[in-house]
Amino acid sequence: MTTVTATYYVHDQKGDLEKKAESIALGLTVGSWTNLPAVDQEQLKKHKGEVISVQAVEPSPASGHFTSKRTAGEIKIAYPAANFSADIPAILTTIFGKLSLDGEIKLTDIDVSESLLKAFPGPQFGIDSIREELNVYDRPLLMSIFKGILGRDLDEFSKQLKAQAAGGVDLVKDDEILFDNPLTPFEERIAIGRQVLNMEYENSGHKTLYAVNLTGRTFDLKEKAKKAVELGANALLFNVFAYGLDTLQALAEDPDIHVPIMAHPAVSGALTASPLYGISNQVLLGKLLRLAGADFVLFPSPYGSVAMEKGETLAIANALTSEGSLRKAFPVPSAGIHPGLTPKLIQDFGTDSIINAGGGIHGHPEGAAAGAKAFRDAIDGIVSGQSLDEAASNSAELETALTLWGRG
Amino acid sequence: MTTVTATYYVHDQKGDLEKKAESIALGLTVGSWTNLPAVDQEQLKKHKGEVISVQAVEPSPASGHFTSKRTAGEIKIAYPAANFSADIPAILTTIFGKLSLDGEIKLTDIDVSESLLKAFPGPQFGIDSIREELNVYDRPLLMSIFKGILGRDLDEFSKQLKAQAAGGVDLVKDDEILFDNPLTPFEERIAIGRQVLNMEYENSGHKTLYAVNLTGRTFDLKEKAKKAVELGANALLFNVFAYGLDTLQALAEDPDIHVPIMAHPAVSGALTASPLYGISNQVLLGKLLRLAGADFVLFPSPYGSVAMEKGETLAIANALTSEGSLRKAFPVPSAGIHPGLTPKLIQDFGTDSIINAGGGIHGHPEGAAAGAKAFRDAIDGIVSGQSLDEAASNSAELETALTLWGRG
Repeated sequence: MTTVTATYYVHDQKGDLEKKAESIALGLTVGSWTNLPAVDQEQLKKHKGEVISVQAVEPSPASGHFTSKRTAGEIKIAYPAANFSADIPAILTTIFGKLSLDGEIKLTDIDVSESLLKAFPGPQFGIDSIREELNVYDRPLLMSIFKGILGRDLDEFSKQLKAQAAGGVDLVKDDEILFDNPLTPFEERIAIGRQVLNMEYENSGHKTLYAVNLTGRTFDLKEKAKKAVELGANALLFNVFAYGLDTLQALAEDPDIHVPIMAHPAVSGALTASPLYGISNQVLLGKLLRLAGADFVLFPSPYGSVAMEKGETLAIANALTSEGSLRKAFPVPSAGIHPGLTPKLIQDFGTDSIINAGGGIHGHPEGAAAGAKAFRDAIDGIVSGQSLDEAASNSAELETALTLWGRG
Repeated sequence: MTTVTATYYVHDQKGDLEKKAESIALGLTVGSWTNLPAVDQEQLKKHKGEVISVQAVEPSPASGHFTSKRTAGEIKIAYPAANFSADIPAILTTIFGKLSLDGEIKLTDIDVSESLLKAFPGPQFGIDSIREELNVYDRPLLMSIFKGILGRDLDEFSKQLKAQAAGGVDLVKDDEILFDNPLTPFEERIAIGRQVLNMEYENSGHKTLYAVNLTGRTFDLKEKAKKAVELGANALLFNVFAYGLDTLQALAEDPDIHVPIMAHPAVSGALTASPLYGISNQVLLGKLLRLAGADFVLFPSPYGSVAMEKGETLAIANALTSEGSLRKAFPVPSAGIHPGLTPKLIQDFGTDSIINAGGGIHGHPEGAAAGAKAFRDAIDGIVSGQSLDEAASNSAELETALTLWGRG
């Protein structure tokens, strides 16, 4: 049967996990079962949720403030696809709609039947096509962010973009808090971005993508994205959790919006941060964003001050890059990244990932271009088997960065 | 200055709340400040976030599992409207984008400047117009829900609707997990709903609204809603948190979708349930849904098994009905409601609320029509100053309900 199977981490005061699982499986599908006449049971059989497994597990330390007895369990329930239309809002409402309000319960995993997966586009480009586009095959990509661009004008925008591209970054993204504004209007950012990056390409042969922040009202986004593509935008940044996963999917599916989409995790912490409630990062930033068609997914790295637990970051990366019928999306661990972390980043996230830095590029004593070069030298060194120090011995920029920020 | 002021409940391991507040106010706006040249400070002044207040408060009991020292605070920060476009995604990304990922922090309140409020429609109808439409002024409205409709056909749908309307409910809503399906197609539910309710109106003079579940892909919703209105739908149910608040706003603003919209809280628990993370119910189900234009807002009542803490339910109701420039929306405390709770419901939520029951209507021993009548008799009695028992002395249906479910 075509289904979505959901895994929940549940803390239950009453402690009867089997009963709880059965009540979820019925409550979110046919409502009741054992008291139904046989003829109704026959009619409703294909709509009934099915408890796949119930397993007692360790309660979360975060549940420790409750004085009452507490049982924790992992419950798996399969929901027949006959119950919902093949879209993310219907799936979310079915598997974690009312249930999200029902005590300490977290949606930790989902498994979508292969036949249902066909209804979803997945990434339009994915890792392979983006590598082709950039002609970079054997190393993590390098990405950077504008710094303090809010309230600044197009001159500053252009200057920052030039410096980042000159240093060899593969992608530059807008600040996610940069919206439509008179100082750096959307269309002019695209036009100038295109001009600056084309010039850099002609000079050095190095191609850089600029992800412009797609913002505004939901029903204007498609036209705005099409306009962006017409004007030469080659990537879009999107605050998907301030809108909705289905909106991302619609953008990814539109053949006239034929550029890769970068999903920003803004607002997602409101859903993922609690160990007891909400949705796991693996599901939200991993499986659902890949399903909806993100080509790149940003999430907090496990190294910085705004950090995510390492296991969670690896689970996101795995959900984005595991073999499957959908294209793979680039994991982009972000925040707190400096060149000294390059060996750790490559060890943890592999070469099919993106190294993304803000302060670690702009804060370089010799400027952003040197900051970017320090990263590129670190990446090239590590990928070719050198140590950081070996790589730094041929790169004054990297040496300076390591002296400033340390070696990991 | 036009601003959005956000209030956060923060737990901080380091304990320096003033510093944390300042770092949020800068980090989410201009990035840095004290080291900027005076000329840059001048340019950026109108974009800088401002710490309004920092107050030490009691740490949440839920933070007690941490062994380290913990300081809790309430931080208020004002974000200049110059920083974002006047839409909910931009506001959310600004005030709780990256910040939602930054440790134990909950967005507990927002205050939108009066001039910025003008950009938002608020409820199209609101409490007053809906009362006019139904010609009911002096009591809470009564609403009911289909029971176990998934997997059933249009005959069952029609039968259930007829019984509920006959008993005197003012609104009937679709099950939120009823999507496009071959047994009870969207357009036929509307057509049959219209027919059944028109007949009831002709027979008894009692008007009932039927809120059909608006589902499917985001960019199809407007056309689908317009079609629904053309076919005679007189209300829409919408799983707003499976889509996005801005999508609700777009539906509410569209002059061709001139019917009240009922916001369902499905999936919202993923954002609101933790005391340490996410967004408060007051903000999400209260202020933001009113801003986006919900005419009715469902939320778990404080009485049932899927319960919300009473203070939170009252805060939602207050946010929906407080005096202000936007129309008022109906609070709909739901789940676990039976006629014996009527005095409590009216005491807690006032007459400008909706009493919403599923099992408390369908589970009546004499059927749904009797179940609805029991409620109506309880409501009429309480509103006219009777006790439940006095009301029941003239209503066999209410007497039966009180015997079955108790008196509160």
